[in-house]
Amino acid sequence: MATVFPFSAIVGQEEMKLALLIAAVDQKVGGVLAFGDRGAGKSTAVRALAALLPKMKTVVGCRYNCDPDQPDRYCEECKEKVKHGKVKTAQVPVPVVDLPLGATEDRVVGALDLERALAKGEKAFEPGLLARAHRGFLYIDEANLLEDHLVDLLLDVAASGENVVEREGLSIRHPARFVLVGTGNPEEGELRPQLLDRFGMSVEVKTPDTLPERIEVVRRRDAFENDPAAFVADWSKEEAKLRRKISQAKERLPEVTVSDAALERAAKLCMTLGTDGLRGELTLMRAARALAALEHDKTVTDEHLKRIAPSALRHRLRRNPLDDAGSSVRVDRALAEIFG
Amino acid sequence: MATVFPFSAIVGQEEMKLALLIAAVDQKVGGVLAFGDRGAGKSTAVRALAALLPKMKTVVGCRYNCDPDQPDRYCEECKEKVKHGKVKTAQVPVPVVDLPLGATEDRVVGALDLERALAKGEKAFEPGLLARAHRGFLYIDEANLLEDHLVDLLLDVAASGENVVEREGLSIRHPARFVLVGTGNPEEGELRPQLLDRFGMSVEVKTPDTLPERIEVVRRRDAFENDPAAFVADWSKEEAKLRRKISQAKERLPEVTVSDAALERAAKLCMTLGTDGLRGELTLMRAARALAALEHDKTVTDEHLKRIAPSALRHRLRRNPLDDAGSSVRVDRALAEIFG
Amino acid sequence: MATVFPFSAIVGQEEMKLALLIAAVDQKVGGVLAFGDRGAGKSTAVRALAALLPKMKTVVGCRYNCDPDQPDRYCEECKEKVKHGKVKTAQVPVPVVDLPLGATEDRVVGALDLERALAKGEKAFEPGLLARAHRGFLYIDEANLLEDHLVDLLLDVAASGENVVEREGLSIRHPARFVLVGTGNPEEGELRPQLLDRFGMSVEVKTPDTLPERIEVVRRRDAFENDPAAFVADWSKEEAKLRRKISQAKERLPEVTVSDAALERAAKLCMTLGTDGLRGELTLMRAARALAALEHDKTVTDEHLKRIAPSALRHRLRRNPLDDAGSSVRVDRALAEIFG
Amino acid sequence: MATVFPFSAIVGQEEMKLALLIAAVDQKVGGVLAFGDRGAGKSTAVRALAALLPKMKTVVGCRYNCDPDQPDRYCEECKEKVKHGKVKTAQVPVPVVDLPLGATEDRVVGALDLERALAKGEKAFEPGLLARAHRGFLYIDEANLLEDHLVDLLLDVAASGENVVEREGLSIRHPARFVLVGTGNPEEGELRPQLLDRFGMSVEVKTPDTLPERIEVVRRRDAFENDPAAFVADWSKEEAKLRRKISQAKERLPEVTVSDAALERAAKLCMTLGTDGLRGELTLMRAARALAALEHDKTVTDEHLKRIAPSALRHRLRRNPLDDAGSSVRVDRALAEIFG
Amino acid sequence: MATVFPFSAIVGQEEMKLALLIAAVDQKVGGVLAFGDRGAGKSTAVRALAALLPKMKTVVGCRYNCDPDQPDRYCEECKEKVKHGKVKTAQVPVPVVDLPLGATEDRVVGALDLERALAKGEKAFEPGLLARAHRGFLYIDEANLLEDHLVDLLLDVAASGENVVEREGLSIRHPARFVLVGTGNPEEGELRPQLLDRFGMSVEVKTPDTLPERIEVVRRRDAFENDPAAFVADWSKEEAKLRRKISQAKERLPEVTVSDAALERAAKLCMTLGTDGLRGELTLMRAARALAALEHDKTVTDEHLKRIAPSALRHRLRRNPLDDAGSSVRVDRALAEIFG
Amino acid sequence: MATVFPFSAIVGQEEMKLALLIAAVDQKVGGVLAFGDRGAGKSTAVRALAALLPKMKTVVGCRYNCDPDQPDRYCEECKEKVKHGKVKTAQVPVPVVDLPLGATEDRVVGALDLERALAKGEKAFEPGLLARAHRGFLYIDEANLLEDHLVDLLLDVAASGENVVEREGLSIRHPARFVLVGTGNPEEGELRPQLLDRFGMSVEVKTPDTLPERIEVVRRRDAFENDPAAFVADWSKEEAKLRRKISQAKERLPEVTVSDAALERAAKLCMTLGTDGLRGELTLMRAARALAALEHDKTVTDEHLKRIAPSALRHRLRRNPLDDAGSSVRVDRALAEIFG
Repeated sequence: MATVFPFSAIVGQEEMKLALLIAAVDQKVGGVLAFGDRGAGKSTAVRALAALLPKMKTVVGCRYNCDPDQPDRYCEECKEKVKHGKVKTAQVPVPVVDLPLGATEDRVVGALDLERALAKGEKAFEPGLLARAHRGFLYIDEANLLEDHLVDLLLDVAASGENVVEREGLSIRHPARFVLVGTGNPEEGELRPQLLDRFGMSVEVKTPDTLPERIEVVRRRDAFENDPAAFVADWSKEEAKLRRKISQAKERLPEVTVSDAALERAAKLCMTLGTDGLRGELTLMRAARALAALEHDKTVTDEHLKRIAPSALRHRLRRNPLDDAGSSVRVDRALAEIFG
Repeated sequence: MATVFPFSAIVGQEEMKLALLIAAVDQKVGGVLAFGDRGAGKSTAVRALAALLPKMKTVVGCRYNCDPDQPDRYCEECKEKVKHGKVKTAQVPVPVVDLPLGATEDRVVGALDLERALAKGEKAFEPGLLARAHRGFLYIDEANLLEDHLVDLLLDVAASGENVVEREGLSIRHPARFVLVGTGNPEEGELRPQLLDRFGMSVEVKTPDTLPERIEVVRRRDAFENDPAAFVADWSKEEAKLRRKISQAKERLPEVTVSDAALERAAKLCMTLGTDGLRGELTLMRAARALAALEHDKTVTDEHLKRIAPSALRHRLRRNPLDDAGSSVRVDRALAEIFG
Repeated sequence: MATVFPFSAIVGQEEMKLALLIAAVDQKVGGVLAFGDRGAGKSTAVRALAALLPKMKTVVGCRYNCDPDQPDRYCEECKEKVKHGKVKTAQVPVPVVDLPLGATEDRVVGALDLERALAKGEKAFEPGLLARAHRGFLYIDEANLLEDHLVDLLLDVAASGENVVEREGLSIRHPARFVLVGTGNPEEGELRPQLLDRFGMSVEVKTPDTLPERIEVVRRRDAFENDPAAFVADWSKEEAKLRRKISQAKERLPEVTVSDAALERAAKLCMTLGTDGLRGELTLMRAARALAALEHDKTVTDEHLKRIAPSALRHRLRRNPLDDAGSSVRVDRALAEIFG
Repeated sequence: MATVFPFSAIVGQEEMKLALLIAAVDQKVGGVLAFGDRGAGKSTAVRALAALLPKMKTVVGCRYNCDPDQPDRYCEECKEKVKHGKVKTAQVPVPVVDLPLGATEDRVVGALDLERALAKGEKAFEPGLLARAHRGFLYIDEANLLEDHLVDLLLDVAASGENVVEREGLSIRHPARFVLVGTGNPEEGELRPQLLDRFGMSVEVKTPDTLPERIEVVRRRDAFENDPAAFVADWSKEEAKLRRKISQAKERLPEVTVSDAALERAAKLCMTLGTDGLRGELTLMRAARALAALEHDKTVTDEHLKRIAPSALRHRLRRNPLDDAGSSVRVDRALAEIFG
Repeated sequence: MATVFPFSAIVGQEEMKLALLIAAVDQKVGGVLAFGDRGAGKSTAVRALAALLPKMKTVVGCRYNCDPDQPDRYCEECKEKVKHGKVKTAQVPVPVVDLPLGATEDRVVGALDLERALAKGEKAFEPGLLARAHRGFLYIDEANLLEDHLVDLLLDVAASGENVVEREGLSIRHPARFVLVGTGNPEEGELRPQLLDRFGMSVEVKTPDTLPERIEVVRRRDAFENDPAAFVADWSKEEAKLRRKISQAKERLPEVTVSDAALERAAKLCMTLGTDGLRGELTLMRAARALAALEHDKTVTDEHLKRIAPSALRHRLRRNPLDDAGSSVRVDRALAEIFG
Repeated sequence: MATVFPFSAIVGQEEMKLALLIAAVDQKVGGVLAFGDRGAGKSTAVRALAALLPKMKTVVGCRYNCDPDQPDRYCEECKEKVKHGKVKTAQVPVPVVDLPLGATEDRVVGALDLERALAKGEKAFEPGLLARAHRGFLYIDEANLLEDHLVDLLLDVAASGENVVEREGLSIRHPARFVLVGTGNPEEGELRPQLLDRFGMSVEVKTPDTLPERIEVVRRRDAFENDPAAFVADWSKEEAKLRRKISQAKERLPEVTVSDAALERAAKLCMTLGTDGLRGELTLMRAARALAALEHDKTVTDEHLKRIAPSALRHRLRRNPLDDAGSSVRVDRALAEIFG
């Protein structure tokens, strides 16, 4: 495993970092899409997040990451184990699964286990990346280059939370709930609206434009490349602090309340902007709640909504031919209108 | 199996809910297509319906869901069993089969059973999704993204009620009658007219546009996601009531009569609208009859016809270059003309 | 086998019904193409014809439907049997073979028998749909959606009456003479002229346009769908009558004569219309003869020619840029000119 | 084998019949392309020719039709046999091999013999249609629909007279000299000039345009279809006469001389017409010589050249933008100019 | 192995030679793209570089070229060996791996080892070119003709330094850090910006335009082709000198310092030119440091930056519609502005 | 093997014949492309050359045609043999390998030896056409119809003189130096500039345009086709003379000198014409040297350069929009300018 650049050593890029932390606190917020300039550190940030995530509890040996605290959602194999009283649990790192562009469909959704089929003549299922990513993150670098048929598969699974496999004589379904994290470069082609909608938050990433910031980035990057181990050691305290912050926010999350007034303002904001469906409101409410949890607040305030609204709504606007302002500007304008 | 959002907890969307209930009462009405905005709950409603359907009687062990009350339509295997006097029956859930976009043709129509072929050198047929969906529902999320060759297969089967398999050295035919249920997003491409025509009813789904309704949707959705089991328990009585309503309507259905006058008005309506073929009239008559059964009426009235006409006819209109009103408006106008 | 709507219960559609009866009387007339509106009963009529056809005599066990009365045309296997004196014959239903759109080339033309190849290491031929359809009907629903490479195969076989297989190390030829019956919807794309020409007759099918007729269709269809067995029983006498009519016409056919005058008028008609080649004349003469046989006439009259000419010639006209009348109108006009 | 319509019973179509007879007399003339109207009997004529051809001498059991009179051109297998003194000869029908449109490349050029490969683990070559057609005819119905990669293969082989196979680990070459006979319909797409050039002669086929001729064709066709065996018997004497004519012309061919003056006029004709390369002259000289042999002439005269020139040259003209006369007209004009 | 033209015998082409030397000194500079005229010696130079590179230390038998000095980055197999105390090391040539255009994906990323799978039924990984190129060079001749899916794979791996394989039931990741060296001809199509960005430096190669230089190239090339061994012997001293120069520069590299002022000027230069991301600055700093090391300088000066800037930045400029000067001219102009 | 038309019996076509002789004398000149009219004898000339070439010395049994005089370039198998002292040598015909258009990639570059893989479970390499053509000629008829991916492979190998195989788990490289000989018809599509550049010389072939020459060609062709053996015997003395001429020129070649003045004029000519790269000069020098050797001259003169320049340079000119003269005219003009 390659040594990873520490999350806390990333210079600037506050919006992206916040969105990733929120996704770490409440996975139901629904994923992050980082879109922007080449070489501005999108991939670095996502890979850094993986190293930060607190551990999770699973059934030992389960190929679908079953949660021991939800026995009613056990997979077939865990149900079988429970009958024989054999379920052990363990704390394991939250899976952050890479979906490489060259991945074949059989590895993504799972496929017939050829080794067993050939050796024993049995038709067994070999789970794929979607199973491995369950309860964790699925990371797609250059998401806009992903082949269409893989995108269709992902949309299906992301919508239902289940992976339904009907191929090669297999007929399997298993839970597959994960946070989609993607990066992309708008110059290489846009994402389909259908896929955009599946990302809870989207963030715009730009090359820093002040000289000191640029120099600092280059200095840190050069130091890291010359001696990764030493650099990681230098930042280990900062990393531990951040990891603790995420854990505590996760614990506090169920207690954070959303007032009717706040929810109404969130809904008004979405109606003003004309976002399709209601995923805008839902994401906005959940992300604001996670933000409040991160900041030790017990209730969601206008301030939380305002800070998170651009990330939660920007990618859900329809193109408005009479308003050629960019998406971010339109969200800001609506925020000013609703929140005064 | 993931916990499903209860049908009765769906806010608004009355047209869609009615169409789904009618399809549950009389499967011969011919399927429902829900077309509309992203995130407005189309998939949720369809998945919720599955949980509502009353059970049906089948031959135990039959891979084609043979109906014990129709021995003349038995599959080859059941005919064989009957000869040895061995047919047992059971009440099972009505199948609601997902046709995932990544499904391969072999899994849809069925294929050579490779396991048996390799192990025993026998050429046996392994039924596919079409067999499994017999007497139940076949559900296609994002039907407009389905590959053309699968659409052609579905049309063939939907028209004949039989699945004819001629591939891999197999030559099989078995009954495959099912209710097609599809969802789609018009922004992602239109359905072919040929496929549209196979859906008995089509409904337009829109994001709710009143603030209280939107807030209520978000509240319920958030409650469900935070604790699905508790939420389902809260709605279990409503669900039971609705399930009973469907069962009773199915029983009453054969007694509901259609007067010559009503049938004549239905035919006039279709002629006025210039729908192709006669599937419009047939659907209209059947759907109105199912609606009457749901509402404890013994005969089909103008009122039933008027309520169901938009869903039954809207998707069967030819584009009229001299009349650029939308389909719904044209149906309403014809209704006013015929029914006064 | 699904219960089929009776041919005699079909309301209207006289041209289509006559063409199908003629093809049943003389298979050499060369097939019927039913082209027209969705939902107007094209498929129903074709499937109904199959139930009507009188039986035919074959060699028992022959996979190519060899005719016991034509020993000089026996297949290799029958020739082998004859040497050992073992040929038995039987009366079997005339094959009406479905060519489903998803059929693979190997199932259409036949292919290597993989089961035998794997089990015994023998290179044996497994006949396909073309062999099965020999001496019967090959039915293509939505013929205009058939893949081009399958169309090319069909044309080759329809022209030569033989299926020549050169694939997978096999080199086989067997007789394959069948009546092509197709349906199509002009909105879904036109048929290639080459394929059109292979259909002896073409008929235009329209949704009935009188209120009583439409109501009658819907009534009968509804009655059939509610209780197929009862409906079929109600019409069984009509069906038997029609079946007898076909049998008798087949017997009378060789005695019906065509006068030189009639043949000259048929040729004049084709020259006036400028049909390509001479298949127009041939079909016209044969179809008129079959019509005469159906109607107990001993010789072909102008009346027979006039009634059958639109079906026999309509699809063979070249587009005439100076005459934008439809094909049917042009045939009618030529009929008036020749027959006065 | 289906009974074939007799060559001598074909009404009219004199140009096509002459070209086919010439190809039968001297195979080096290089093939015939019959291009024209649908249903005018192109395929019938080609299939009829096969039944007419006199037999040829081959090595018994040779898969490449080796000629016993040319031991220096023996295939590897025959060379092996000769060493053991075992070569037997026999008179066999000249092969007329169908190249069906659905043929796969492996069957055309030959391929690894899978049966032997699987059974004995040997890499043996199984010859294809090109081997089978050696010293005979290769017939392509609808040559303009042939897939491009097959056309390329044919061109390669037709140019070199050898089939060079480099595939599936095989490296084989064997002689493959055959007469290409093709039919085509200009409405379905043109032939590539490269392929056109490989046909020695091209003939235009038209539907007969006199009433008596059309009636005679239909009468004979109808008689043949009603009782093929009787019809063939009726024409057997005519067929025998024609077969004798071909045999005698083949024998006389080597003695027919071409004077320098005739050759010069042939060359002048080609220069005037501006045909590419020298295949025009060569074909013209050879075809005229075969015509002289058919007509018992000992030397080629202007008359022979004039009669055969349209068939030999018509398809070799470049498009001339300043002369929009058809190819046939341009050949006629040049003939008038040269021969006065 | 073919004898290679010596690097030191290359006439002219100073920019390309310098870029290749810099990549040899610091592989982290990130590859060289040589773009330009056909026949100007691009491929020759790259192949010559391979012969010049000093050796590197690896674990004996490691299929991933593990570095014995970085045990924490060992591959799974080396980790296993270490447990049994068995790691041996050796000096081996730095790998310079050809990626031929016809390479299949399985050979590039690695694949299931079929030999072991078939022989022993084991699912083992057979590393591909990316593994073999680790710690060395990956050379793509005609990089702009590389198939898109291979380019996507390369980008993925070049960005992460890891090869993630998810195919054929395998799930493997191994380090893959290499210097991409490519050549291309702009007439044959442009490189995608995404791939361009992955090359640290780009150089323009032109045919020499002075007569003496051209004659010298031809003389040397002719001498080499007539007797490669003698020619290589003549230049062996020059080659050894150059190899020593690279080794010494590699040793001196860690001591070369970059002043804040120099780094600031590098950053200013990139901001002025508006290069995307920060890879421009990073490359510029690293390449200037390697250049200083090559020239025995202890600190990076403006002179180093100026000399290397065109190669490091030229291919990172966005197209500027208001400035139609070429990339090189724009870099020169910015250099003049910043460095005065 | 078919009898081949003798090279010395070819009428006219002097430029093509000279180019082929030069390639036979010095294979490093780099191949000949014959481009022009259909039927003008391009293929005939190339096939005739093969019969003329003097023999070459190889290691007996070597699948890569290793040259016994260059032990340092031995293939792996020969190196192994040398260790055991077993190398025998023999004189064999120079290989002239046909690359048929239908060749599959595995046969061109070589592939896994399936026979051994299946029989013994060994992964052995079976060399392809490129190995077989080493030290000889690779002949592509209709080179402009060659599939792009094969062209890419050829370019790669022609540039490096090595065949690098990375497929099917194989990783092999072996020398592959050959003279590319191609023919093409400009009407069927142009060659890619990249491939054009790989041919040392290009010649234009035209149908002869004098009557006597045309008649002579047809006479000889007819005589050859009627009795190939007799015709070849008639020309055997001429052939022997020509073969001797080639052998002697090969021996004299190393002694022919090129003066600085001649080389300067060659370079000036290329600069004037603006040919890309330096392959123009190199080819011109080498071809002139081979011409001098053929003509018993000891030094290259202006006359040699002038005669060979059109063939060596014509296909290397860039399209000049200000000069719409053909390539040949532009070369002639530059010759006049430089040589006065």
